[in-house]
Parts: sequence; C-alpha cells; structure tokens
Amino acid sequence: MPLVRIDVNEGRSEREFRAIGDAIHEALVTTCAVPADDRFQVFTVHSSQTLIYDESYMAMHRSDGIVLVQVTFNVGRTTEQKVALYHRAAQLLAEKAGVSPDDVFINLVEVQRENWSFGRGVAQLVPQPETK
Amino acid sequence: MPLVRIDVNEGRSEREFRAIGDAIHEALVTTCAVPADDRFQVFTVHSSQTLIYDESYMAMHRSDGIVLVQVTFNVGRTTEQKVALYHRAAQLLAEKAGVSPDDVFINLVEVQRENWSFGRGVAQLVPQPETK
Amino acid sequence: MPLVRIDVNEGRSEREFRAIGDAIHEALVTTCAVPADDRFQVFTVHSSQTLIYDESYMAMHRSDGIVLVQVTFNVGRTTEQKVALYHRAAQLLAEKAGVSPDDVFINLVEVQRENWSFGRGVAQLVPQPETK
Repeated sequence: MPLVRIDVNEGRSEREFRAIGDAIHEALVTTCAVPADDRFQVFTVHSSQTLIYDESYMAMHRSDGIVLVQVTFNVGRTTEQKVALYHRAAQLLAEKAGVSPDDVFINLVEVQRENWSFGRGVAQLVPQPETK
Repeated sequence: MPLVRIDVNEGRSEREFRAIGDAIHEALVTTCAVPADDRFQVFTVHSSQTLIYDESYMAMHRSDGIVLVQVTFNVGRTTEQKVALYHRAAQLLAEKAGVSPDDVFINLVEVQRENWSFGRGVAQLVPQPETK
Repeated sequence: MPLVRIDVNEGRSEREFRAIGDAIHEALVTTCAVPADDRFQVFTVHSSQTLIYDESYMAMHRSDGIVLVQVTFNVGRTTEQKVALYHRAAQLLAEKAGVSPDDVFINLVEVQRENWSFGRGVAQLVPQPETK
C-alpha cells in the first residue's frame, strides 16, 4: 500500500539503490505495520540541475547524497508511529546504505483505504460485497 | 483536474504509451465524471533498478509490464465510483494496451477544489468574485 | 516544507531551470509564508511522449513550454493564499523565465505538520518532548 517515491542524485550503484529501498521498506514494516510484501517503490535519478534542495534548512548539512522520500499510505498512523518511522529510516539508511542522517528528507501523504487497487481492478482494502 | 502520474518500465513503444494514457483517461471520464478534455498525464520510464514492486502482494502475478498509476483529483468521488474506476481502467488497459490486469496498480490522492490552477494564475474551480 | 515537483519538456537550459525554480519558490515565500530557505524542488524532464496535456482545457492555449507544478505542503493555507500563489507564480514565471501564463498548471496537495522530517530522523514541525 505504501507507494514510495525516492529522488536521488545520479552516480549511485545498483547495490546502493537496493540498500536505500530496503532501508526505507524495513522502516515502514517495523514502525507502521506495513506488510513485508507490500513494497512499491519508484526511484527518480537526478542531475544537480533537476534536484534542488537547501543545504542547511532546519540546521542540517545536506550533501549531494540527499535522499528525498515521499510516502503515500493510508491515514491512521499516529504521530508516534510517524516519528518512529523517521527515526528508523534515518538509522537504517545510515547502516545499510551509508546515507548521512542529515540527507534523509521524508514526507508523508495520507489517503483513504478505498484509494488503492493492487491489481485486477479491485479495491482490495475495501470490504468486498458478499456473493449470494 | 486529474493530474495522473504513470510509472512503467522501459521498452514500450510510442503507441503503447498513447494506449495506456488513453485507457486511463477514458476510465476517469466514464466512471468519475472527468471532462474529456481535462487530461494531464506524466509518464516516467524506468529500468528494473528504479521501479521496485512485489511480484505477488495481494495474490497478483506482477510482471515487468506493471503500470503504476497515481491519480490526484478532487475529493468527492464515492467508493462506488473509485471501484468502478479501478475496474474500468484494468479492463481498458487490457483491451487497448495489452496490459495484464494483475499489472494495474492504482492509487488515488484527493485534494480540495481550490487546489488547482489550470493556467493564467487563476483558481478556475473556485467561484470567481463578482466584477462590480 | 513544500516538496515541489515540476514537470517540463526537454530543451530547456540550466538557466531556465533555475529561473523556473526561483519563480515558484518566490511565489510560495511571498504568498504562503514559506521560509526562504525551505526549498526542495524536483524537476522531471520529458519528451512529448511522456508529458501529455490537453492544449485548450479551461480556455488556455498550452504549448510545449508547459510547466506542470505539484506542491505538497501543510494544510492551513486559506483559499485567498492559494489564489495569490497561483497569481504570483504565473506572474513570476512570465517575468523570470518567459513562461506563458497559459502554460502554468499548479496543483496543491495538503498534509499534516507531523508528516515531515527534514533530516536526522526528527519530525521538526512537531513540538519536541521536553528534556528533563
């Protein structure tokens, strides 16, 4: 259910992409009750021209190693869960992918449960009508 | 008004892009009362490295033919309309573009009517102040 | 805090990218109380195949110079502020980057204050617990 968009600069290896995706997914699974196999991630790779960020906003030291994450998922997570997600994602991105915690930018967009179809034209998260 | 982001893998022809876009737009028009000329679609083309999906979540058989659709539109559609949209989109994507129904992933993001400007710096969906 | 996605056609110079980004950011700062250093913008560059738009919806004359802007920011801006943003963005995009006002498409997505982490795994916009 989460649809995760991840924007990074060019120059990363296939292993790094995988490690970044793994870290973010593990953080979602362990803090926000996302099923382990509910993984949909879209990376966009940028030149310095197409990824613009302030280097110091909120007292960070951002580098071209920035990882900009936008997660769309269901409404209902508490602030505590969201804070745990940020904390865990930053920790795992450092451990697994060598990303500086200052370079981890995360934004969450929340939607209703009926706003997803995972395939076959069905809204899998909506209670299905009984077949008589 | 819908702003539609579509993520697919590389290797599709121009005809396929057009067919995928047409199918999704026709589904929006016929199920969600979107005007026929209200079409704004952004495709992003991926390598296997940048489009990550679980192949079987929710009992699907996803392939590299996956079509990941994120629609931003106005709040107010009913669950019935959303379900009809998913159903029709999957059907039309199969018919027009040969996309397997298992490969059709759709997510909806809902916003307020005042959250759009279609040009000239005007909020066209907001009642305009009377000119005296 | 705003995360801004900007989709344009290929063929623009580095100077034009910068001018487009500057114009949109200045509009956000001057109409929606966004801090000057709170700037995070992601451009995606398209071929005619991947950026689809109706040329005349809402009585516009859109060209391949279209600039499609999607801003994710905090809920709480009034309709007046949003309308001022559209107006100012169109004006500045014309002045700074030579973009036709008919080519300025803007969509806003609103989220809660706790939906952001600007780095270090912290939710900077949430009141932090007191350290005892």
